[in-house]
Amino acid sequence: VSGAGDQAVSPLAVAFPEMPPVAGVDLAVGRAGFYSRERDDLLLMRFAKGATCAGVFTRHGVGSAPVDWCKQQLAAGHGGVRALIVNAGCANSFTGKPGAAAVGKLAKTLAKRIGCRRREVMMASTGVIGVLLDDSRIERELPAMAGALAPGGWDAAARAMMTTDTFPKGACARPSIDGRAVNIAGIAKGSGMIAPNMATMLAFVVTDAAIAPRALHSLLDVYVQKTFNSVTVDGDRSTNDTLLLIATGAGGAPAIGRAGDPRLADFRIKLEGVLRDLALQLVRDGEGASKFVKITVNGARSQASARKIARTVAESPLVKTAFAGEDANWGRIVMAVGRADEPVNRARMSVSFGPLTAARDGRVACDYSEAKMSAYMKNAELDVAVDVGVGRASAVIWTCDLTRRYVEINADYRS
Amino acid sequence: VSGAGDQAVSPLAVAFPEMPPVAGVDLAVGRAGFYSRERDDLLLMRFAKGATCAGVFTRHGVGSAPVDWCKQQLAAGHGGVRALIVNAGCANSFTGKPGAAAVGKLAKTLAKRIGCRRREVMMASTGVIGVLLDDSRIERELPAMAGALAPGGWDAAARAMMTTDTFPKGACARPSIDGRAVNIAGIAKGSGMIAPNMATMLAFVVTDAAIAPRALHSLLDVYVQKTFNSVTVDGDRSTNDTLLLIATGAGGAPAIGRAGDPRLADFRIKLEGVLRDLALQLVRDGEGASKFVKITVNGARSQASARKIARTVAESPLVKTAFAGEDANWGRIVMAVGRADEPVNRARMSVSFGPLTAARDGRVACDYSEAKMSAYMKNAELDVAVDVGVGRASAVIWTCDLTRRYVEINADYRS
Repeated sequence: VSGAGDQAVSPLAVAFPEMPPVAGVDLAVGRAGFYSRERDDLLLMRFAKGATCAGVFTRHGVGSAPVDWCKQQLAAGHGGVRALIVNAGCANSFTGKPGAAAVGKLAKTLAKRIGCRRREVMMASTGVIGVLLDDSRIERELPAMAGALAPGGWDAAARAMMTTDTFPKGACARPSIDGRAVNIAGIAKGSGMIAPNMATMLAFVVTDAAIAPRALHSLLDVYVQKTFNSVTVDGDRSTNDTLLLIATGAGGAPAIGRAGDPRLADFRIKLEGVLRDLALQLVRDGEGASKFVKITVNGARSQASARKIARTVAESPLVKTAFAGEDANWGRIVMAVGRADEPVNRARMSVSFGPLTAARDGRVACDYSEAKMSAYMKNAELDVAVDVGVGRASAVIWTCDLTRRYVEINADYRS
Repeated sequence: VSGAGDQAVSPLAVAFPEMPPVAGVDLAVGRAGFYSRERDDLLLMRFAKGATCAGVFTRHGVGSAPVDWCKQQLAAGHGGVRALIVNAGCANSFTGKPGAAAVGKLAKTLAKRIGCRRREVMMASTGVIGVLLDDSRIERELPAMAGALAPGGWDAAARAMMTTDTFPKGACARPSIDGRAVNIAGIAKGSGMIAPNMATMLAFVVTDAAIAPRALHSLLDVYVQKTFNSVTVDGDRSTNDTLLLIATGAGGAPAIGRAGDPRLADFRIKLEGVLRDLALQLVRDGEGASKFVKITVNGARSQASARKIARTVAESPLVKTAFAGEDANWGRIVMAVGRADEPVNRARMSVSFGPLTAARDGRVACDYSEAKMSAYMKNAELDVAVDVGVGRASAVIWTCDLTRRYVEINADYRS
C-alpha cells in the first residue's frame, strides 16, 4: 500500500493535546510493513488485570474479520480485556474463512505473549477491503512491541493507526468519581465515515476508573448516538468501524456497577466530551475538507425524523459542493430537506446560516442579503439551521464540504 | 443567471437524432432573458384539439409551483392538454403564494393566446430554487412565439431548456398501431437527477397516436420505473422533475382506451425504448461524467431490495470516485452493498466487472487479475454486476462517475 501521509494537513486540524498516561494502560507501536514507505502501522495496548471493555461496531452488512472477533468476545459476556492490537494498511474485510483464521491465530499468539486468555484480546484493522491479513507480519513484531510497552505515548499511538488522516486525533479529560480524580484518554482515526481504501473509523477510549462491563456498555450506547453517530463525511460506512471503551480500574477510584450511579455524574459529562471531541476531529480531517459544518434540524416530527433530514442535508453532494464553493445557495438546503422523505411543512420552513436568515415561512426572507450571506460563507466553520415546521424534535449532525481534493484522494489513491 | 453552455460537451455525448414532426404538435422557442448571455430559454408547444396527457412528477417534499400546477390540472381528471410552456433559468420552487400566483397568471395569459382553457395548459420550470418566476418576462414573448409555432424543430426545442446540460437530448420511434404507423418523439434535459442551481430533469414525449388519458397514465407508470426512475447522477432529487406524455390523436391511428390493448404491443416496446434512451442520455450528460456505468444487482430477496442495493452502490461517493480514477477497487462495491441495510449473504456474494470476476463466495476470486481489471476500467462504459446470494430478484441502475469536474461545476457555478 502506498500513499498516506504525503498530503497536506487539513486546514481544519487541531493540535494533539497533552495527554497523561492512564493507570493500567501501556502502549507500544511497531512496523509490520503494510506500507511501502517507512511508518508505524501497528499499535499494541496492554491493560491491567481486571480491566473491563465495551464496544460498538459498524452496522455494515458485510463487516470484517476483526469486527466479528471483537463482537464474539464481547457477546460472551465476561467483559474482560487485557490487550488490543491495531493495524493500518489492511482491513481484513471480505476475506472469508482465511480472514477469520488469521484473526484467531493472531489472538492466540498475542494472548500467549501477554499472558492472558484469547478472549481477552481485542483487535482492529483498517485499510484495503478484500485483502487477507498477513498475521505473520504482525506476529513477528510482537516480541519487540511487548518489550517496549510503557505508559503514555498517545501521539505515536494515534499516528500508528492513521491512513488518509492528515493529523493524529486525541482527547482527554480528568473527571472525579466520588471525590477521586480519574483519567479518560482517547485516540481515534478516520478521514471519512469510511474513506474506502485506506481509512476506517477506529476509536479507543481508556480510563483508569473501575466500571462494570454492563455499565460501560450503557454509557457507550447513550453517548455514541450524539457523538460518533452524529458525524458524516461522505455517507459511506466502513466495514471495520470500531469504538472500544476500556476501564482499567487501576486509578484507585471506587468500583461502579451501574451507568446511572450518581457518583458517575462528572465522569459521564467528561466522557461525552471526549467522545464528541474525537468524533468532531474525524470531521475536521474529512478527506479534502475545507469547511467544518454543523447542521441543526428543528421543528421535526420526531428525533429520528430530524436525524434523517439532517443526515440527508449533510450528505447531499450538491449541498457539500456549495459549501466548498462558499456559495450561499440556500436553495440546495431546501432541496436536500425535501428529498429526505420525512414530514415537512413547506409553508413554515425556515433556513438560516449562522445569525442570518435565508428563508422564512416557505420563501426567501424579506431581509435576505446575498452580500452578507456570501461573506458568512467565507468562514471555515459554518452553522446551518433548518426548521421544518411540523413538530418539536431536533437533531444535530456535523459534516464537512465536498472538494476537488476529495475526488483526487479517492480517484487517484490506491496500492 | 450566468454560466451554462460554456462547458465542454460530455465525452459520453450522443448525437441528436433526426426527428420528424409529430402530427398535432407545433413548437416555438423564445428568449425571456433569464440568462445574462444570449440564448433561448423558453419553449412553447401547442397540441391539437383532443390531445391527452399523463404526467409523473418529482416526489420531492417541497416541490415547486409549476409542478403543483400540473398535478392539480391532471388530478382534475379531464386529461386534456393544448399547450405546454417551459422555461430555463428559474425553478419557481420554494416561492410560496407569489410563486403560485405567477403560475396561475401565466396559464391564464397563455390559454387566452392559444384559445383553450387554463386547465389545458401545462408548464415546467428549471433553474435556481427560491427565486420567484417573473411571469411578465414570459408573457411578453408569447405573441411572437405563438406566431412562430410550426411542426418540428426538436433540436432547438431541446436546446431551449438546457441548463448545465452539455448536449441536447432527443429520441424518437415509429411504431405501428393496428397496422398504422405513428410517431413518438421525446426531448429531455438534465445533468444530474438534480443539478441544483441550474438543472432539473424535464422530459416531454409526444405521439400522434390516440390514447385515452388513463391508458396513457398506465403506460407511463409502468415504464418510468425501469427508465427515468432507474438512473442517478448524484442522488439529489429535483424540486421540479417533470415527465409528460402527450398523445395528440392526430396521426390517424385508431383510438385506444386501455394500456393493455394488444394493438399497443409495438407502441409499448417503442415507447419504453424512447423513455430509456432519454433517461440514459441524462446519465451520459451527468455533471462532470467521464464514465457511463450500469450497475446490476442479482440474487436479492426482492426487487425493492435489489433496487435499493443498486442505488446505494450507484450513489456511493467512494464507488463513483473509483470509477473516475479507473481504479479496479472492487472492495468499494462490497462496502456500498453492505451499507444498503438490505439482506445479503457475505459468504455467497460475488462481484464482477464486465466479463471479469473480482470476487466470488465472499472473497477475492482465485482467478482475479489486477492487470486485466485495470485494463477493463479504462473503458468509457462499465458494467458492474453484484450477486448478493439471498434470493432471485434483480435490478439495474445506470449512473456515472464522480469527477473533479462535478465539484467544479457545483462549487463554482451560480448567478
